[in-house]
Amino acid sequence: MSPPALCLTARLGFRQTVQHGERNDPPGGCFRSGRYHRLLADDELGRSREDVSIPLNSNYVAAFHAIQADPHQLLVVAVHREHVVGTLQLSFIPGLSRLGSWRGQIEAVRITADHRRIGLGRNLVEWAIAQCRERGCQLVQLTTDKRRLDARRFYERLGFVATHEGYKLLL
Amino acid sequence: MSPPALCLTARLGFRQTVQHGERNDPPGGCFRSGRYHRLLADDELGRSREDVSIPLNSNYVAAFHAIQADPHQLLVVAVHREHVVGTLQLSFIPGLSRLGSWRGQIEAVRITADHRRIGLGRNLVEWAIAQCRERGCQLVQLTTDKRRLDARRFYERLGFVATHEGYKLLL
Repeated sequence: MSPPALCLTARLGFRQTVQHGERNDPPGGCFRSGRYHRLLADDELGRSREDVSIPLNSNYVAAFHAIQADPHQLLVVAVHREHVVGTLQLSFIPGLSRLGSWRGQIEAVRITADHRRIGLGRNLVEWAIAQCRERGCQLVQLTTDKRRLDARRFYERLGFVATHEGYKLLL
Repeated sequence: MSPPALCLTARLGFRQTVQHGERNDPPGGCFRSGRYHRLLADDELGRSREDVSIPLNSNYVAAFHAIQADPHQLLVVAVHREHVVGTLQLSFIPGLSRLGSWRGQIEAVRITADHRRIGLGRNLVEWAIAQCRERGCQLVQLTTDKRRLDARRFYERLGFVATHEGYKLLL
């Protein structure tokens, strides 16, 4: 299998795609067909948390529009032969600490089971880090569930350091 | 010493305060006088990372304006007798995972040394959690440096669970 080509930046972001006015944009199409959130559910932790029914749960549609409307959110997909095989969300957060520095935050990294171990996740995360540098961020951060041992090794190989505890409170 | 009153919601946010057009707003005033980021530096980890010189480092001014302009960022201060004694930043992040749920993210929690252990931090964080509920977030998250043992106990008492590793990459 040839490695999937990472989409070009201009096609990666839902937002950019929409700005470019492409009616057949793959990310938007993937979302509307339900393929995007099926990928979120293709995972031992995601399975119990997502709803893969069609028509789309209206919560997903509302969230998609909220992300699309926010210039500080980038939701990207990696596409291989018209299939979504990877996703990543990147948020840019302004702050006063660390000399008023911006930070990039990575969430929702998912690679389909049949496209792992070929460097696609690394490509996506390195793309995100480059975006952060381009926007002048001083820091990139993310959290990963402690049970995801593969993910922890993956981020450590990319240079991330687990200096922090990641706390969650479900409401 | 009487406990400092937590500012009313309407006065807490830089953004709200500015919207209300108050010229003497304590948060904005605290920021412009340099008192806000002196608080960020009043800490074993912050000391080496911040610049407390006056006039303000222009990076802080740019960051302040970026936060002020973003409706998904709330930067709040607790004021006691005209002094800033606590701060917290709350970011609202949309996402497709977990059924398209919003999450609230807490950053930059700081309490001055002479106002700790009187429940002020708890008040600030509980205020933030209430804001998250009000906006329909399903989750509140934060990371804290593993070396901050007091902070870890503090968040655990508030119900946060350290299910995640918090990774950082300095650029």
